[in-house]
Amino acid sequence: MPNRTVFFVSDGTGITAETFGNAILAQFEINLQKVRLPFTDSIDKAHQAVRQIKHAGIIDNKPPIVFTTLANEEVLKVIAQGCQGILMDMFSTFVHPLEKELGIKSNHHIGRFSDSSKSEEYQSRIAAINFSLEHDDGQSNRDLSASDVILIGVSRSGKTPTSLYLAMQYGLKASNYPLIPEDFERLDLPPALKSQQKKLFGLTIQPERLSEIRNERRPNSKYASLTNCRHEVKEAEAMMRRSGIRWLSTTTKSIEEIATTILQELRPERLTY
Amino acid sequence: MPNRTVFFVSDGTGITAETFGNAILAQFEINLQKVRLPFTDSIDKAHQAVRQIKHAGIIDNKPPIVFTTLANEEVLKVIAQGCQGILMDMFSTFVHPLEKELGIKSNHHIGRFSDSSKSEEYQSRIAAINFSLEHDDGQSNRDLSASDVILIGVSRSGKTPTSLYLAMQYGLKASNYPLIPEDFERLDLPPALKSQQKKLFGLTIQPERLSEIRNERRPNSKYASLTNCRHEVKEAEAMMRRSGIRWLSTTTKSIEEIATTILQELRPERLTY
Repeated sequence: MPNRTVFFVSDGTGITAETFGNAILAQFEINLQKVRLPFTDSIDKAHQAVRQIKHAGIIDNKPPIVFTTLANEEVLKVIAQGCQGILMDMFSTFVHPLEKELGIKSNHHIGRFSDSSKSEEYQSRIAAINFSLEHDDGQSNRDLSASDVILIGVSRSGKTPTSLYLAMQYGLKASNYPLIPEDFERLDLPPALKSQQKKLFGLTIQPERLSEIRNERRPNSKYASLTNCRHEVKEAEAMMRRSGIRWLSTTTKSIEEIATTILQELRPERLTY
Repeated sequence: MPNRTVFFVSDGTGITAETFGNAILAQFEINLQKVRLPFTDSIDKAHQAVRQIKHAGIIDNKPPIVFTTLANEEVLKVIAQGCQGILMDMFSTFVHPLEKELGIKSNHHIGRFSDSSKSEEYQSRIAAINFSLEHDDGQSNRDLSASDVILIGVSRSGKTPTSLYLAMQYGLKASNYPLIPEDFERLDLPPALKSQQKKLFGLTIQPERLSEIRNERRPNSKYASLTNCRHEVKEAEAMMRRSGIRWLSTTTKSIEEIATTILQELRPERLTY
């Protein structure tokens, strides 16, 4: 049982505070109770947060760890002075030295994700998600040339979650296209992809792992059999090698690592932040 | 033209460094050139990074801003001593005080997203993404009861990107189900949803915005007409009110804000970090 509580306090969604806090906590082998306090954007809510944090400290008999990303200094002050926790304040720690270096004042803008719905960047991210969904699994060749990235590989090699991650995190129009037995017989890339060579990136996977994944979907099928998986992977890798397509193995990689590697290799021109 | 460069240096994917750096930089009205240096995990690569950062500083005639999440202290030392930039080091700033407070040493574990592909948490996140895709737009009633969250609303009210975000960010099995004219005529929720009431959350949207979005897809259709959008939104809101379903308007909200609000309201039991 965890006997220490961690709070993520933000005046926005708290997503930055969580990412930041979890990255720090990943450096410790410790099991903690985690509590999110998003939208803490008024003095009233700050006092509520203080009560909740103090209460956890009393129950745990240990001061809670409190990660904050608060642009409102009044709210921060209430929490810093009242909560009796260990404060890990992201903003003042880094914003103040940056103000000095840049020679401008911070705007105390609350919530990196608020108002963003109106921004062009946000709209293009949503458009990218829709595009990636419509171009999942070779569903549509329409507009394929509008893709920033096209992932290819055998069924269940990790193309779909990676495409969606690229769209959601980086606003990239990421299509994906399966390599199927027909392509192997033809000994050539799917015709729709021939003119898109520069945007292609291959995903491969160990046949043993692929067979496991496919067996969860279609137990004891030919599709999932190790023999068939070995064959498909061998053919797909041979084709990618022949066509000079960059590829990586997803077997032990997370979608974050796969996506980062793809970006490093392809360096798509349009990269929104 | 931006005349100052920002670097995100990490021994892993750099996703935490980017999230952290962008949140800090969002506090300033300034346009910067951004460069990612992921997988900087050896002394050699650290020296390469130093060369690149120093070079940018010379071109800009201003010291680059360098956000780092480096668990490897040797790599950090090379960069800190050599790069001649403004170092914003996330880990040592917060990890050292935490070591003291927790009474344990940090593990200097590199890359929050590496090795994660084998973890149960990661596998369940991928399973959630697949589940959400299979249960997009009411495609399948199979296993609907396994959902953690079921979003309802008229077509193009924001259900799909929000479901995928909930799956990707929080590992939640988020289904979504469209409310269609048949449901309005029947004056009742789709039958498949009747037993899932506790997991339902509604999304609505201003008819004017909805009409804009639909017109991009099917210009000048009845589907996209303002009259039809007004009718559908009115009927959907009436149905959600009648059925006691919590809902919010997505018109000016980002998927991050929508997702955070849903979590606050529904508080699904299974929340993976």
